[in-house]
Amino acid sequence: MSKGLPKRSEDYSLWYNELVKRADLAENSAVRGCMVIKPYGYSIWEKMQAELDRMFKETGHTNAYFPLFIPKSFLSKEASHVEGFAKECAVVTHYRLKNAEDGSGVIVDPEAKLEEELIVRPTSETVIWSTYKNWIQSYRDLPLLVNQWANVVRWEMRTRLFLRTAEFLWQEGHTAHATKEEAQAETAQMLNIYAQFAEEFMAMPVVKGRKTENERFAGADDTLCIEAMMQDGKALQAGTSHFLGQNFAKAFDVKFATKEGGLEYVWGTSWGVSTRLMGALIMAHSDDNGLVLPPKLAPIQVVIVPIYKGDDQLNAISEKAKEIMVALRKAGISVKYDDRDTHKPGWKFAEYELKGVPLRIGIGPRDLENGTIELARRDNLTKETFDLSSQAIEEKIGNLLTEIQDSIYKKAFDFREEKITEVNSWDEFQTTLENKGGFLSAHWDGSSETEDKIKELTKATIRCIPLDQKEESGTCVFSGKPSKGRVLFAKAY
Amino acid sequence: MSKGLPKRSEDYSLWYNELVKRADLAENSAVRGCMVIKPYGYSIWEKMQAELDRMFKETGHTNAYFPLFIPKSFLSKEASHVEGFAKECAVVTHYRLKNAEDGSGVIVDPEAKLEEELIVRPTSETVIWSTYKNWIQSYRDLPLLVNQWANVVRWEMRTRLFLRTAEFLWQEGHTAHATKEEAQAETAQMLNIYAQFAEEFMAMPVVKGRKTENERFAGADDTLCIEAMMQDGKALQAGTSHFLGQNFAKAFDVKFATKEGGLEYVWGTSWGVSTRLMGALIMAHSDDNGLVLPPKLAPIQVVIVPIYKGDDQLNAISEKAKEIMVALRKAGISVKYDDRDTHKPGWKFAEYELKGVPLRIGIGPRDLENGTIELARRDNLTKETFDLSSQAIEEKIGNLLTEIQDSIYKKAFDFREEKITEVNSWDEFQTTLENKGGFLSAHWDGSSETEDKIKELTKATIRCIPLDQKEESGTCVFSGKPSKGRVLFAKAY
Repeated sequence: MSKGLPKRSEDYSLWYNELVKRADLAENSAVRGCMVIKPYGYSIWEKMQAELDRMFKETGHTNAYFPLFIPKSFLSKEASHVEGFAKECAVVTHYRLKNAEDGSGVIVDPEAKLEEELIVRPTSETVIWSTYKNWIQSYRDLPLLVNQWANVVRWEMRTRLFLRTAEFLWQEGHTAHATKEEAQAETAQMLNIYAQFAEEFMAMPVVKGRKTENERFAGADDTLCIEAMMQDGKALQAGTSHFLGQNFAKAFDVKFATKEGGLEYVWGTSWGVSTRLMGALIMAHSDDNGLVLPPKLAPIQVVIVPIYKGDDQLNAISEKAKEIMVALRKAGISVKYDDRDTHKPGWKFAEYELKGVPLRIGIGPRDLENGTIELARRDNLTKETFDLSSQAIEEKIGNLLTEIQDSIYKKAFDFREEKITEVNSWDEFQTTLENKGGFLSAHWDGSSETEDKIKELTKATIRCIPLDQKEESGTCVFSGKPSKGRVLFAKAY
Repeated sequence: MSKGLPKRSEDYSLWYNELVKRADLAENSAVRGCMVIKPYGYSIWEKMQAELDRMFKETGHTNAYFPLFIPKSFLSKEASHVEGFAKECAVVTHYRLKNAEDGSGVIVDPEAKLEEELIVRPTSETVIWSTYKNWIQSYRDLPLLVNQWANVVRWEMRTRLFLRTAEFLWQEGHTAHATKEEAQAETAQMLNIYAQFAEEFMAMPVVKGRKTENERFAGADDTLCIEAMMQDGKALQAGTSHFLGQNFAKAFDVKFATKEGGLEYVWGTSWGVSTRLMGALIMAHSDDNGLVLPPKLAPIQVVIVPIYKGDDQLNAISEKAKEIMVALRKAGISVKYDDRDTHKPGWKFAEYELKGVPLRIGIGPRDLENGTIELARRDNLTKETFDLSSQAIEEKIGNLLTEIQDSIYKKAFDFREEKITEVNSWDEFQTTLENKGGFLSAHWDGSSETEDKIKELTKATIRCIPLDQKEESGTCVFSGKPSKGRVLFAKAY
């Protein structure tokens, strides 16, 4: 129940943790850093998956599945890749347990040691490119456009439900191309798909940009990203799309015979979004009463709650409710009727607010008399009485759901716009970061050294160089050296 | 290409392995025993998943996700469970790699040893019941009907693509109930769903039965199963549904407050099918030319191949092909038009036979003149010329696909029936097993001792005690002791 949900203004971090648990989205498991995604949370993730999967397939990608385990030696084949991931790999060293001789339970059988240790995939470039070597011989085998839905493991020390967990679910696309240009176009295309998904379905505005060398994926030549703004003024990286150049092709010796009879290394991309998006969705829209879900991703779009005394009233209300349900379902709207007699209407109202159901229909005896229902919006908590004879119910609700989706986006967009501040001096940078947070649009001299120094002093990182960066001469807020355009700094999740 | 695909009659095992690889279903990976499921194979698995998922949801189940890792100590909590799984567990002992001092690559960092080793889930009863302890307090929390789609790892020594792999994909349902009867009804319901799926979608007849104590799931009080017959006379267990009694509830102390105010242990079930079904599907129907896929699970149901010389002919044929595609797609039939000029029609015919596409449409210049097309069925390799003016194309094809689905089932059913032999003596048992294989329907004295002895001597195991077993007095084929009914023996995958 929302009773006692902490307020965002008092403790944003606690509010988030409690909301995730109380709205039945996820919880911590017995294994440190690993989460259990609960049925309600998982049903939102399934809706995300379905839309993304459709978008991937519409652009010619197919799904496949590659092994969970990667031989340790594979990781070392791409120098910067191993650098980036070795420190957080779960390692399988044995393949059997046996009974302890003192009867205390099971122990690892020392005789069952693997010849080569296996790491649990933190990402699958290495195992996939080792496979692609056999799949790609000629230009006729290209492009290869494959995606995988999978679990991955990165042994993080500090974890938070959805945002940073030792195991998480994601999709990872891995494509191979004959030319640099085609691979770059794929990298851009997938970023656009992520941005479209974030904005149209999650109702979450994002900035499309490019990572600096410091923040680039380990093994990529170029990393594009979408960055979102959370309500506490911190940024969240919501998806990345990497141009891998020929790095993995060279590491795994993947060459193809060109149309012209030559032999060349293949060009690659990889791109992914994860259950982290659940964290973004929660933090972008929710309020002190609980979740606010955009209708397009809500497992239940409409809930009907009867307000009654005694069975006669309930029966009459139920009849009306069922009529409405049939009409809504026919129109493809998901609807639940909660006629449990174990809980009072007020309890139910709070429960569905906590769960973020976009629209609540209340029906009481007076409504029956008047031919009305009460419509309560979750996003702005407004109510209206709707005359059932004035318009077809499915049309009214359909329009309202569209309006809610748009309105949630608009609110997040306005908030995000308000949270982008142009700063022109180091003083302004620090003051704004401290007092207002958000994105700081600032000139930067382009050096990793300055970037590192700013991070060290303020914890703010360059979230991205926006793809629509304007050419504008200026001087770096920190070093005073010349700059050709503004980049976005922020503290980030 | 099917050129050189081994014949089933000569080397069934090689035929299977080669077919799986050449039809682009799966291949072995660099990690011993783990497979790569290739895009075409994965698209069949996705169709299986979609149907099963729908059936689970229609019966009130929801999906969730539980951690990949299980603390070693969890496994020991249920005595027979640990006995069954400890010997094949992949164990994570460390969480970090570091650079070797001699520069030879990465090594396991000995300082990053886990306090308690983690096993990679071989099945999730333990981690799920440890979670259910927090989810279940009262009868109001029951039943809890949860399913998970996940990867699991069982370190098998002898592996075969799809049939037995170290890592495989599956779904595992885990339910909790207030009464024994309700849990038993759930166990039976899920078995029925599996049987319905196998027969209606995979076109694969199955025997529903009960496992003997020897073959029961480690931790269950009762294991129900569906058993299918492959073309080489071996049986294949295609799905299991377990009644767990209160075993896991007791191991993890999961009690609930009853309506009457008492406190009782919860009753449990678990049930699963895996990518093993892919192996069953392949072996049940395919022939020496390649895969035979039932239309309901075929990623491509119809392929159109143009037969032409020169661009003018191709253009005219393409126009007709596109008309047909529009009509078929409108009717929900998946169709591919293969107008690649890099391959001849004969090559394409063989390719789609290998891939098991149920129906091939050939269109040549003469067809255009006559207003006909050629229809070639994959299942029985028959062809017919169809007059496009005689019937709507989508109706004709729709009917044909239904007929193919039914016909594939009928063929497998007749084969299976022919492969069930009643045997009444030990001599007959051995001769039939050797010469004919299949299911031996025989009297058994009910003892594990006899069962073990028969297995030792013949490699045949009791596949199941059929649920529709007839009461019939007899004497055990091996021991001569009294028996009340026949059970099914077979060699099995």
